[in-house]
Amino acid sequence: MRWEVHGERFVYESPWMSMALVDVEIPGHERFEHHVVRVPQPAAGVVVHDPGRGVLLLWRHRFITDTWGWEIPAGRVEVGETIEEAAAREVLEETGWRPGPLEHLLTFHPANGITDLAFHVYRTSSATFVGDPVDVHEAEQVAWLPIERVRDELARGNVRDGMAAAGLALHLLDG
Amino acid sequence: MRWEVHGERFVYESPWMSMALVDVEIPGHERFEHHVVRVPQPAAGVVVHDPGRGVLLLWRHRFITDTWGWEIPAGRVEVGETIEEAAAREVLEETGWRPGPLEHLLTFHPANGITDLAFHVYRTSSATFVGDPVDVHEAEQVAWLPIERVRDELARGNVRDGMAAAGLALHLLDG
Repeated sequence: MRWEVHGERFVYESPWMSMALVDVEIPGHERFEHHVVRVPQPAAGVVVHDPGRGVLLLWRHRFITDTWGWEIPAGRVEVGETIEEAAAREVLEETGWRPGPLEHLLTFHPANGITDLAFHVYRTSSATFVGDPVDVHEAEQVAWLPIERVRDELARGNVRDGMAAAGLALHLLDG
Repeated sequence: MRWEVHGERFVYESPWMSMALVDVEIPGHERFEHHVVRVPQPAAGVVVHDPGRGVLLLWRHRFITDTWGWEIPAGRVEVGETIEEAAAREVLEETGWRPGPLEHLLTFHPANGITDLAFHVYRTSSATFVGDPVDVHEAEQVAWLPIERVRDELARGNVRDGMAAAGLALHLLDG
């Protein structure tokens, strides 16, 4: 059953994200205003799994959640580039490795009850070292983790964000 | 490397979610205001996988993203209940089945670059039918999908939200 959208008003707007109150009606039930965080630019990430090296991950801290976790290289798609270009760019900037040809793995909405933000996850089986990462402030550590170690880190709860948890788990399932 | 938080101001506040601008500094680099969507109440969901029936899923539409997808029963934790109580309550309200004992599967932040929202996913291997679901407006269909069908739906991209994608994939990996 589809909820019916009657209209929308913004209570906060910015180029990066806006807060909207959407006038929505559940057919036969109530009509109310529902918060929606509108994020125009999606994010893209890559599961770089070179069978000879492992999976290229970043161990990093996130101030928003005050958590440390293993993440896949990822970031916001900028205006003027394709999603795939953004994904490859983020790998290079965050790790110093240029990924090989990208294959689309999954697209999902991390929190579809509150935001329209979309995540696009790719994968590749190769990468070439270019130089030290540009984004030195992102990760505490950039490392190739053997695939069995990745499985273990997932099981231990050391992959704490949606992009990496869904991307790595689906890649491991789909092997 | 931890980014340093100097302070925070709100540009929008409500009991459900607020928009904050956090004054953050990347050590040795820039200092700027970073948007953060603060969501005080986490969400909880359950992978109900009865080996004799399959996995209990909802096929539903989400107006925020205008997408249809298979989801696990889930919802917001209310003030005054534990996370586990919320998880069990949501299963009952959304499906009409009362879940058996819950085991914690994973806790993650679906979008840790923009929000502090947390997801807690549990699993159980049994459920008892109580009656038609209370939340009739949530799902178009409530169904037990055989586990191989779930694997297939994940591969086809029919699981489009973070809670279900991460929860189902991790459950399948972890057997």
